[in-house]
Amino acid sequence: MNEHDLVTRLRNGERRALARAISLVEQGGSAARAVLAAAYPYAHAHRVGVTGPPGAGKSTLVTALAQEWRKRGVTVGIVAVDPSSPFSGGAVLGDRIRMQALGGDPGVFIRSMASRGRMGGLARATADAVTLIAAAGFSVVLIETVGAGQDEVDIAQTADTTIVVEVPGMGDDVQSIKAGMLEIADIFVVNKADRPGADQTVRQLRTMLQLGGGSTDGWVPPVLTAIATTGEGCGQVVDAVNQHRQFLTTTDIPARRALMVAERELTTAIQELVLERLRGPRWNTVVGEIAARRRDPYAAASELLDGWPT
Amino acid sequence: MNEHDLVTRLRNGERRALARAISLVEQGGSAARAVLAAAYPYAHAHRVGVTGPPGAGKSTLVTALAQEWRKRGVTVGIVAVDPSSPFSGGAVLGDRIRMQALGGDPGVFIRSMASRGRMGGLARATADAVTLIAAAGFSVVLIETVGAGQDEVDIAQTADTTIVVEVPGMGDDVQSIKAGMLEIADIFVVNKADRPGADQTVRQLRTMLQLGGGSTDGWVPPVLTAIATTGEGCGQVVDAVNQHRQFLTTTDIPARRALMVAERELTTAIQELVLERLRGPRWNTVVGEIAARRRDPYAAASELLDGWPT
Repeated sequence: MNEHDLVTRLRNGERRALARAISLVEQGGSAARAVLAAAYPYAHAHRVGVTGPPGAGKSTLVTALAQEWRKRGVTVGIVAVDPSSPFSGGAVLGDRIRMQALGGDPGVFIRSMASRGRMGGLARATADAVTLIAAAGFSVVLIETVGAGQDEVDIAQTADTTIVVEVPGMGDDVQSIKAGMLEIADIFVVNKADRPGADQTVRQLRTMLQLGGGSTDGWVPPVLTAIATTGEGCGQVVDAVNQHRQFLTTTDIPARRALMVAERELTTAIQELVLERLRGPRWNTVVGEIAARRRDPYAAASELLDGWPT
Repeated sequence: MNEHDLVTRLRNGERRALARAISLVEQGGSAARAVLAAAYPYAHAHRVGVTGPPGAGKSTLVTALAQEWRKRGVTVGIVAVDPSSPFSGGAVLGDRIRMQALGGDPGVFIRSMASRGRMGGLARATADAVTLIAAAGFSVVLIETVGAGQDEVDIAQTADTTIVVEVPGMGDDVQSIKAGMLEIADIFVVNKADRPGADQTVRQLRTMLQLGGGSTDGWVPPVLTAIATTGEGCGQVVDAVNQHRQFLTTTDIPARRALMVAERELTTAIQELVLERLRGPRWNTVVGEIAARRRDPYAAASELLDGWPT
């Protein structure tokens, strides 16, 4: 089967073709690039990032949100890049049972990404998987990441709407949210809202949002509560995502984000192609010389690129 | 002042030259590369990664460990890449006062890295800063990162010894450690050991280490306790780092790690040089075409690299 056939079949709803295309793309190389090229024009979907600290119940919330969208007749893709996620492997039994509710539904597609590999590899592989799932016609793609680290921020920036999940009783750790989460959140969800301190956490987040001077682009992130294990509050979260999606159409944010994402995708594509061309015996020799501190990486890189246009 | 003078001066112990060199290197470009090339042969230091979740008290522990090393007459560099760290900006008042104990000591150099910038940029900038601090003669360089995300794992992998910090009462979240931390930890420190549940957390970690089948390379990570705010237990942590350092000399781990780090440094150096050469009007046009989904990133990358050796 050639790459165009594969994309035709995944666009026709063949799940095995989609799974196979993602595996192909994860491996990289020219076949992967052909598949992505064929899928790229069709990759329209609303990308929803779900991020937050370990233990915030992100996977359970993702499951409950997917069920809520399904109730509304919307198809949902899920990409999990959180190593503690049941989707990507670190499951406790209860979580696995819960996510099985989604398993048999042809309107749901779940894929986990291993948090491993080359630098920049995870962000690229995740973006490529989302492209394929979107091209297969899933209307909403949920991307679950643990909310720390540059890679996660990079992934979050490719989302159209970013949900930041928190739990009651973070105490001083609210400090750590301030650093990065406040800027990327379009919607806050205080999960496990039946726990003590939920109201206080909601108040703290709202105060932080006010102190932050309000949103520069005209969107004020709502702070919602949910109990993902029962689905309580998930309808309001889906409503908020739809409102944010509607809001985006009145701004130039999607256009600016598309340029940013395009530049990042082009950069990683170039890196991949260049490394393919440079790897070989000479490459290994040079790596050994750098490791022995007989030469520095930049001088070695210049030498390897000798003869290339400047 | 040319780049060799700058490196000569930082090697002579001029702190301002070191600070200036790091700022230069963060900006990138040819001057940055010249500085790194001059510093590279002298960059010998024991690199100690300190990682763990937000709220584990990593910064306080780093401060206490630095004080312990100073008592032993060892010079210490600190690089903080945790956005919630007082070293890198997200400080609460108590932490700032505590770290001031290190401020006036010429045997300590502190640098924070912003958790921002281009993909792969933080890991590269951190590695370069560590290279310069090591070349300036600091014997131990502590690298503080929040323990999640590919970027942090990349940074941790450049450390000779990795300390994973936990706190009592993590409950179910111990699950999330299993995924990645267990593999990278050379030493576990249960901080805030005066809190309830410390013994249980120590037992859980030891059980997980046993279930993990023991270390493949012959090192069994010790599980230590500390109260970083008082310095209690920090002597044992420094002892354990020294034991691990001694252990490493009996293995090929440093050689293998040096190759891995060298390959990563070469890869990022190549990426930087290639992008410098490719950015321009044509680049912007192509980015716009990708954003409009009129072409895919890989086809565009191939076109931009047209004429380059294959």
